Amino acid sequence: MTKSILQEARAAYQPQMPRILQGPLKAVEGEITESVADKSEIQAAFPMTYGMRTIAFERGPAIELPPINVGVILSGGQAPGGHNVIAGLFDGIRKINPASQLYGFLLGPDGLIKHKYRLLTDEIINEYRNTGGFDIIGSGRTKLSSKEQFDEGLQILKELNITALVIIGGDDSNTNACHLAEYYKAINAGVQVIGCPKTIDGDLKNEQIETSFGFDTACKVYSELIGNIERDCNSAQKYWHFIKLMGRSASHIALECAQQTQPNVCLISEEVYENSISLDQIVSNIANIIIKRGEAGQSFGTVLIPEGLIEFIPEFKPLISTINALLAKESSTEQEFKQLPKSERRSWMQHQLEQGTGPDAKANAALYKSLPEVVALQLALDRDSHGNVQVSLIETEKMISEMVAAKLPTGQVWKFSPQHHFFGYEGRCAAPSNYDANYCYSLGYTASCLIATGKSGYMASVRNTTAPASEWIAGGIPITMMMNMETKEGKRVPVIRKALVDLNDAPFQTFAAARNEWALNTSYLYPGPIQYFGPTEVCDRPTQTLLLEKSK
Amino acid sequence: MTKSILQEARAAYQPQMPRILQGPLKAVEGEITESVADKSEIQAAFPMTYGMRTIAFERGPAIELPPINVGVILSGGQAPGGHNVIAGLFDGIRKINPASQLYGFLLGPDGLIKHKYRLLTDEIINEYRNTGGFDIIGSGRTKLSSKEQFDEGLQILKELNITALVIIGGDDSNTNACHLAEYYKAINAGVQVIGCPKTIDGDLKNEQIETSFGFDTACKVYSELIGNIERDCNSAQKYWHFIKLMGRSASHIALECAQQTQPNVCLISEEVYENSISLDQIVSNIANIIIKRGEAGQSFGTVLIPEGLIEFIPEFKPLISTINALLAKESSTEQEFKQLPKSERRSWMQHQLEQGTGPDAKANAALYKSLPEVVALQLALDRDSHGNVQVSLIETEKMISEMVAAKLPTGQVWKFSPQHHFFGYEGRCAAPSNYDANYCYSLGYTASCLIATGKSGYMASVRNTTAPASEWIAGGIPITMMMNMETKEGKRVPVIRKALVDLNDAPFQTFAAARNEWALNTSYLYPGPIQYFGPTEVCDRPTQTLLLEKSK
Repeated sequence: MTKSILQEARAAYQPQMPRILQGPLKAVEGEITESVADKSEIQAAFPMTYGMRTIAFERGPAIELPPINVGVILSGGQAPGGHNVIAGLFDGIRKINPASQLYGFLLGPDGLIKHKYRLLTDEIINEYRNTGGFDIIGSGRTKLSSKEQFDEGLQILKELNITALVIIGGDDSNTNACHLAEYYKAINAGVQVIGCPKTIDGDLKNEQIETSFGFDTACKVYSELIGNIERDCNSAQKYWHFIKLMGRSASHIALECAQQTQPNVCLISEEVYENSISLDQIVSNIANIIIKRGEAGQSFGTVLIPEGLIEFIPEFKPLISTINALLAKESSTEQEFKQLPKSERRSWMQHQLEQGTGPDAKANAALYKSLPEVVALQLALDRDSHGNVQVSLIETEKMISEMVAAKLPTGQVWKFSPQHHFFGYEGRCAAPSNYDANYCYSLGYTASCLIATGKSGYMASVRNTTAPASEWIAGGIPITMMMNMETKEGKRVPVIRKALVDLNDAPFQTFAAARNEWALNTSYLYPGPIQYFGPTEVCDRPTQTLLLEKSK
Repeated sequence: MTKSILQEARAAYQPQMPRILQGPLKAVEGEITESVADKSEIQAAFPMTYGMRTIAFERGPAIELPPINVGVILSGGQAPGGHNVIAGLFDGIRKINPASQLYGFLLGPDGLIKHKYRLLTDEIINEYRNTGGFDIIGSGRTKLSSKEQFDEGLQILKELNITALVIIGGDDSNTNACHLAEYYKAINAGVQVIGCPKTIDGDLKNEQIETSFGFDTACKVYSELIGNIERDCNSAQKYWHFIKLMGRSASHIALECAQQTQPNVCLISEEVYENSISLDQIVSNIANIIIKRGEAGQSFGTVLIPEGLIEFIPEFKPLISTINALLAKESSTEQEFKQLPKSERRSWMQHQLEQGTGPDAKANAALYKSLPEVVALQLALDRDSHGNVQVSLIETEKMISEMVAAKLPTGQVWKFSPQHHFFGYEGRCAAPSNYDANYCYSLGYTASCLIATGKSGYMASVRNTTAPASEWIAGGIPITMMMNMETKEGKRVPVIRKALVDLNDAPFQTFAAARNEWALNTSYLYPGPIQYFGPTEVCDRPTQTLLLEKSK
């Protein structure tokens, strides 16, 4: 691999770790845990791994352990720092015994099931320290959930004499890691399973897990770009920029970027949902800000829109489920729809909605009619493999700007000229910030300590991360502790509870207190690119979200 | 203005300057100059400023000069480093005499004509050192070209006792700066005019001007993002990313980013034009690469597309001019077109083209028919104020990916899933790299020296910039020297000759020698974000374009 000049310079960075991990340690058991809700159901689903105690590490005697073989899987969407989790894990198991081996399963859980793997040597690991991406072994979205898959996996684990598996993933992947831990315990397979909290979306967090890795770096990359765009719009004074940001359902990314850049508007899906704010209200609010700024000679601005917004707007839920039903795989209506030329599909859908009889039928037809062409077509055309609309593909940024334009008065001296952006792929594989480089390395190293102390069904936990890294606290949390029951595809199943933006919490409250000021005045902040070599206040700062959450 | 933490840290940076500017100097005249072409016509258009000698600075005696009042204008699109040009100019005229004053005209040339300005104090300048954007005084695109405008401007210059005006702009703005210099000389107005070479597009360069400022920073921001996307596509192994890049007609930005990131494909408009490569050939070439990579298990990739491409594809020129004629302002066909609902406009246009009688009529109709819906509509709908199609708004990245998809065989085990991006506004207002911070400050300081030595109609020139800044060479170049005659809107006029990508030059040749390797293998480079505080090889490196041009 040819490296860029910055990669060469950055390779030498030694990630910082909690002091406790820098010497011999022992696992100290804390309280017996319970799931966040639905205790008896979770316990029934996980008889072997439910109710375990939290683990903290303390200084312990130096003991000699035999070498171990460990497997690692990257699961789901990329997040900055994945390579450092693997590097920390590698260094950790080599510390346990220099003869330990690390195997990486290729392209996600598929690698385990299909027995595709790569022995990770010193040389390979060194190539990837402090780099972005998941390309050391690749990632994938196959769900590891059936007994057959678990058994297939066990075959190769046995063959390679692997006694512990680390799964790096988001809430779904960690839920599945727990199922695997449970199964391997139940059949006495002799394989421990440890999870690591990954996702740029920032929605895998709770009392025990402060943040998921990658959120810091991704938000910093997006904020760099938003700041640059704000400076552009403040210089040219002629465009309104509508910027959609990744983050799936949760608005953490949008909220964090808003704190870092102080845009004129930032929509928060959770607020839209909780306060039942209609599409018309959203659009009118933005239009009013545009009018006020225009009248004040400021016909420019920046609007942040979270990726998942549309699902949280009250009137879209019935519309989307009606369309999903109409286009359900292999239904007669789907067959009819598919035969139509694209140009006739919108009017066909409009007609179908008008024929609807349910309580939402009238509202659905009216909403669909009000939508800009591009979004109406996206709602009908872009389906996933289940036939459901792919909400993330809908160009909400264009929908909102087009509907805003229709609300503006004509004949003003000021003009409304929108520009559109969607940022996501730009940040998922950025090289990790110091924070993520340290946090990920510590998570991986912590995973090795949980393995050495015989744990399974735990997630690696590193806390107190707004303090200097040496003071961070490392331990393990039973995954079942984070679970509750939810209905997915019609079935009630145990899952790790997603953390959406909490409107009562400091990050949202701080934003809400400032946003009127930001809307009318131009209060942009230009955070600039991630720095690796400068003063610590520039290079080592965690997210505003974390700082505000800690300030409580 | 609230500053981000990085801005605070970066404000302290002292830009580096050529050694010669760091003490008393004198102007030394070089050769008498001639325009690059059309000598007699350029001379006739600029009798007062044609044929002046180049200027170099050498160490001179320290002399005391009276204070001067200077005006400055930012003209056209933003480019990183504009604030540093102004800071260098400010420091330079204060060095001449501490009582000198700098006035900034607001929102571009309009500020001069409409007498809107701002006195730039120490305090203001210090707020903006080493920052991106043009927001210190704003920018604008009004063309400064008529005698009336020149006279309006002179009024306010006289009122403020301004004896020199610095215009920071691209080729057009500098052409107009030369007209202004010429006019003020001819009427003996007592106002010098100096230009500074600005544009991220990189097309304002020649024997005397190595590069325009902002090109370095903008390309580094885009390359950061392209590298992140490449790493994402190499990790997930499922998307082809089609990335359009700003740069107007010239492909310098795309070519520079290709050198920095080594994508699978990078189109170069100038090559398409010179070798008459048809749209079908372009699409087929990309499809072949996708097929070969897919068969090798690599169904992912990255394609860079220069913004101006479509105008260089041979068969688009007649189609665009035919559509422009059909939709010419207030023509009967335009009236008819405007009455139509949007959904009928494409077929109306198709019909019109099929009725055409010129030599290109058949080809036009066939080409229009072959275009994806979105592009066909954009060609018909998005018009500028003259009724011409706005080529920069056409989503070439979607057009190409959609046409590529249609060429791919079905029933393969690999899939083609495209993603689309357009980068432009993300980089125009980034905080300047060390290179641009130094280069811009030096340009501004050089402008002050040209003023002190009584010059007008010159562009500030700083050369040898691949060497350490202390060894850079500062001087002045008569703007007429860069001019030739071109036909614009039916009139033959003098303009600075734009530098498009030269297919015989090292940057293109190096790219052409490597691209087959990049196409099939995955040779991505991940340059990462601009660094301000690290090792010099990371922080101070100029563009590959400049390094390669100098390597000749």
